[in-house]
Amino acid sequence: MKITLHSLATEVYVGRDLLNGTLLREFCGEQKVVIIADAVVRDLYGAKLAEILEAPLLTIPSGERAKTTETQEQLMGELFKMGIGKDTTLIALGGGVTTDLVGFIASIYMRGVVLILIPTTLLAMVDAAIGGKTALDTPFGKNLIGTIYHPKAVFIDLETLNTLPQKEVFNGFAEILKMGLIHDAAICDAISSEEELFGMILQAIKAKIAIVEQDPTEQGLRRILNFGHTVGHALETIADYQLAHGEAVAIGSLAEAHLSMQLGYLAEKDFAQIQKLYHNFSLQLPKAYNRDRLLQAMVYDKKRAKGVTRFVLIDRIGHALPFAGVFCRPVALNELEPSLKWMEKCYGSV
Amino acid sequence: MKITLHSLATEVYVGRDLLNGTLLREFCGEQKVVIIADAVVRDLYGAKLAEILEAPLLTIPSGERAKTTETQEQLMGELFKMGIGKDTTLIALGGGVTTDLVGFIASIYMRGVVLILIPTTLLAMVDAAIGGKTALDTPFGKNLIGTIYHPKAVFIDLETLNTLPQKEVFNGFAEILKMGLIHDAAICDAISSEEELFGMILQAIKAKIAIVEQDPTEQGLRRILNFGHTVGHALETIADYQLAHGEAVAIGSLAEAHLSMQLGYLAEKDFAQIQKLYHNFSLQLPKAYNRDRLLQAMVYDKKRAKGVTRFVLIDRIGHALPFAGVFCRPVALNELEPSLKWMEKCYGSV
Repeated sequence: MKITLHSLATEVYVGRDLLNGTLLREFCGEQKVVIIADAVVRDLYGAKLAEILEAPLLTIPSGERAKTTETQEQLMGELFKMGIGKDTTLIALGGGVTTDLVGFIASIYMRGVVLILIPTTLLAMVDAAIGGKTALDTPFGKNLIGTIYHPKAVFIDLETLNTLPQKEVFNGFAEILKMGLIHDAAICDAISSEEELFGMILQAIKAKIAIVEQDPTEQGLRRILNFGHTVGHALETIADYQLAHGEAVAIGSLAEAHLSMQLGYLAEKDFAQIQKLYHNFSLQLPKAYNRDRLLQAMVYDKKRAKGVTRFVLIDRIGHALPFAGVFCRPVALNELEPSLKWMEKCYGSV
Repeated sequence: MKITLHSLATEVYVGRDLLNGTLLREFCGEQKVVIIADAVVRDLYGAKLAEILEAPLLTIPSGERAKTTETQEQLMGELFKMGIGKDTTLIALGGGVTTDLVGFIASIYMRGVVLILIPTTLLAMVDAAIGGKTALDTPFGKNLIGTIYHPKAVFIDLETLNTLPQKEVFNGFAEILKMGLIHDAAICDAISSEEELFGMILQAIKAKIAIVEQDPTEQGLRRILNFGHTVGHALETIADYQLAHGEAVAIGSLAEAHLSMQLGYLAEKDFAQIQKLYHNFSLQLPKAYNRDRLLQAMVYDKKRAKGVTRFVLIDRIGHALPFAGVFCRPVALNELEPSLKWMEKCYGSV
């Protein structure tokens, strides 16, 4: 089973048994290939794939904390030492940390080498690996360094979900749900009625491709994908990445849905409906949370303009507000406070 | 006096008295601006421009050795600490090191901020600031990290050439001459007949824009701009950047013209004519030069494919060979040796 989607310069293959290598080998042709995976994914799939493709395999540490300049430099040093040239294809095999980091390296190594992404987590399949964003975290905030660089191909092998921990499934669901809230109510319906995962994955990928194709460089519409992330990224920063991205985005989506209601855009019953969608999630603010730290971390939000943080807002399930093509709106501190209070009350540790 | 050229996403202004700020101020509008210059240019033009634009001014060390990951990280750290957001314009004011480095930062800071280049050296005016290439050097070689990222505008103020040391004028001439050799014989004629500098600068910029527009991402034609740089970059690497880029490119252009002759593409009389074009240059191989080091450094040439270094070659003054659209050709060691011997004989220190 294999479905092919097209997004800008990228072919997206979704199917089962794609990691056996036949299609990948064909795709790489005679190009030199280097595979990069974290330690966990290396043992699960990396070593075997390296054997099939007869390619060297480099390992990075696991976890969001690896998505730094230090790992990037170390990895690039290894590539240089190996004499890896511009005629090389880099394959990123793993979750969002790996696809973000290796994508960034591919975009700057000798001014760009061919990139293939093989996401092995639900979150990377529906979000990180789609749309060409690459990123590193900095002490100032998440994803503050990066490029927009489109992979030649994305191979999504659903078999890899069989080895995914339940916690990681929730991480991916947080992004699928977000996509439902901002763009496609049918996704939320599918989640409510507990439909099969495969259909939802495909819907989420198609929705993301549609948005990215309309606004590849995030001048407007693409910003809606950032719903839930204004608060979410800040939470991750103050938790020093001890909070999973999905959990942060789930809390962030709820807080920003509350904000949408608070500002009069979203009906109360819609907000109640949204809360129900998250009933399976077990959410808690990080221990290091306090209001000042959150506000300080939000200063580094990339949507910020003229010194004011801007939020993506929704007016119903499945629809983000266009705000005259800007797709976000400045929110003053006093406008934001009731939603932060609500969030602290619901998910605070005290 | 002001001439406006268009290249991809970039407006290129060439004129005098552009640094007085009127046009620049208009261009930046209400955007927040940060100016980055090296210590020398800061004193010459930076401080005044910062005053006119009411913008903060950051300083980097002078010289090619500053074009490293370390400077990049330090500078980005300063920008983050200042709370600089994605709604900021970075202005790079200076030579090729500054435009390459700040261009790279602009391309990765929050996934890209608006960039304006103000080249103040002849080399940066005719080459580094045109075409969107950004770069950092690494211990493995020159420009091995980088992106292709187009500035919104390039302001070329010819007045700044008045403060340029003579050595720096030769640096720029090496790239103008290279452009003549690969693309526009009229440039070489102009140099032979000692025509006015201004016309040559304009010709060189127009030629570069024409090439870059045809092949923005260097899939073919744009490679011809790399003539003289296969040997040149390797020389800079082994000299640890104690050799000026222009000198390296001049020696490289001569060696690669010799190679073009050696391989039977270029007539002997044309090569003799080319040698004459460089009679004003005082050229010498770096002290650390030896054949093995050069060959080792050439391993990191970005045109290398399947383990063999490829060269841009010319078949007459003003024309690089297309090689079926690849615009470079693999050259085996035994093919290269006579030209290296010739280069060592002419420019060796012994």
